[in-house]
Amino acid sequence: MDAGTDAMTRQMRAIQTRQTILLAAGAVFGERGYGAATITEIIARAGVTKGALYFHFASKEELALGVIGAQLELDPLPPQRTKIQELVDQGLLFAHRLRNDPLTRASVGLAMDQWSENGESESPLHGTSFRTWADRLTLLLTEARGRGELLAHVDAAETAELIAGSFTGVQWMSQILCERRDLTHRVLVMFQHLLPSIAVPQILPTLDLDDGRAESLLAEGAVALATQDAGAGEEQGPPGSGRPVA
Amino acid sequence: MDAGTDAMTRQMRAIQTRQTILLAAGAVFGERGYGAATITEIIARAGVTKGALYFHFASKEELALGVIGAQLELDPLPPQRTKIQELVDQGLLFAHRLRNDPLTRASVGLAMDQWSENGESESPLHGTSFRTWADRLTLLLTEARGRGELLAHVDAAETAELIAGSFTGVQWMSQILCERRDLTHRVLVMFQHLLPSIAVPQILPTLDLDDGRAESLLAEGAVALATQDAGAGEEQGPPGSGRPVA
Repeated sequence: MDAGTDAMTRQMRAIQTRQTILLAAGAVFGERGYGAATITEIIARAGVTKGALYFHFASKEELALGVIGAQLELDPLPPQRTKIQELVDQGLLFAHRLRNDPLTRASVGLAMDQWSENGESESPLHGTSFRTWADRLTLLLTEARGRGELLAHVDAAETAELIAGSFTGVQWMSQILCERRDLTHRVLVMFQHLLPSIAVPQILPTLDLDDGRAESLLAEGAVALATQDAGAGEEQGPPGSGRPVA
Repeated sequence: MDAGTDAMTRQMRAIQTRQTILLAAGAVFGERGYGAATITEIIARAGVTKGALYFHFASKEELALGVIGAQLELDPLPPQRTKIQELVDQGLLFAHRLRNDPLTRASVGLAMDQWSENGESESPLHGTSFRTWADRLTLLLTEARGRGELLAHVDAAETAELIAGSFTGVQWMSQILCERRDLTHRVLVMFQHLLPSIAVPQILPTLDLDDGRAESLLAEGAVALATQDAGAGEEQGPPGSGRPVA
């Protein structure tokens, strides 16, 4: 093994350690809430040394920002015939991640933790996820407008914030009522109700709003999701059971 | 003062003490989260004796249920020309309460506290508010259906849960981004997007979706809200500045 390979191995190990720490931090934040979680417990859960943790994260807040960052990593969206379909796909893929990736779940839980700022008046934890998602959806809707896909009255930023807010509440309700088992269905109900007020009527019949849509995209290999235990808790049948893309 | 008057005075004092305790509990839960809140701190905040607190509430969980119950007390809804208008009114009045009544705010905060069940696997805290609101909205939509106000494809229960979920996320987003200052506007944007997929088109132009709608209803004296500090943080102009009811 030459020096270059050795350095690469070390780097890969560091990335792996960082991921292990984030997963442990996500689990501990999820169980205790941000306020009650301690770095000591996160170190024990991750099975790393104190030095290793502090090499990657200087404080509990940095750990929290690392966990929250996990939900903000974009799934590469395969281009579709309409930007509105890409908007739907983004929602469905995020719902899929929420159901299958513990780090995404921890990230959303932390972003919704009302007590995550206790004693830290300037913490950037709150609002970051919302603003990031709203900005992305605004961009997507603005592109949709450029292609003539939006109804004339739609205010891209306002509608983007509504979608981000509704999605947040819908996923949270699904979590409370059945640990997100029906999340895909609830997200589809949301889009079915919202899209007629957003997109021009011609587009509506072309949209794939099928329960198996996210799985189809994943099966096509078009999207590589960083799921930790993909397949666990599947709502639907086997991947690819959805309708073909319109 | 005869014995009857005396008993009534005692009862009124008990009701007042109960309310004082709930407000203090709501404030402490809001600041610390359910898990970290202690009965000792709630007693100190309320300025009551330990005996008085335990006379009304046997445990921290009972206190939490009392606070959550505050949001479930129905505003008496003045009948309108359409049930869909009543659906809108309920949302707008609840938004008004969230902005003006500390106990309602505490109640929603507690219902959204992910860590309120720590160590209590059978706690009824979670889900109660959602289910109650969804049931009420389902009833309202079913009445709307009976009057021919709903589009044929609408599933009352599914749509009711979507409205409850969306409202939850929208109010939470408004809380995070600007302490609910823009809540009324966000709720109206939500209804403007959802209603065309719910109500028959003839109803839409009859709806009052004005920013001042809740204040108009309150000014008419048709609704007696149990607001603790009504008027604080008003988003709009003086009560009654909204459009007249359609």
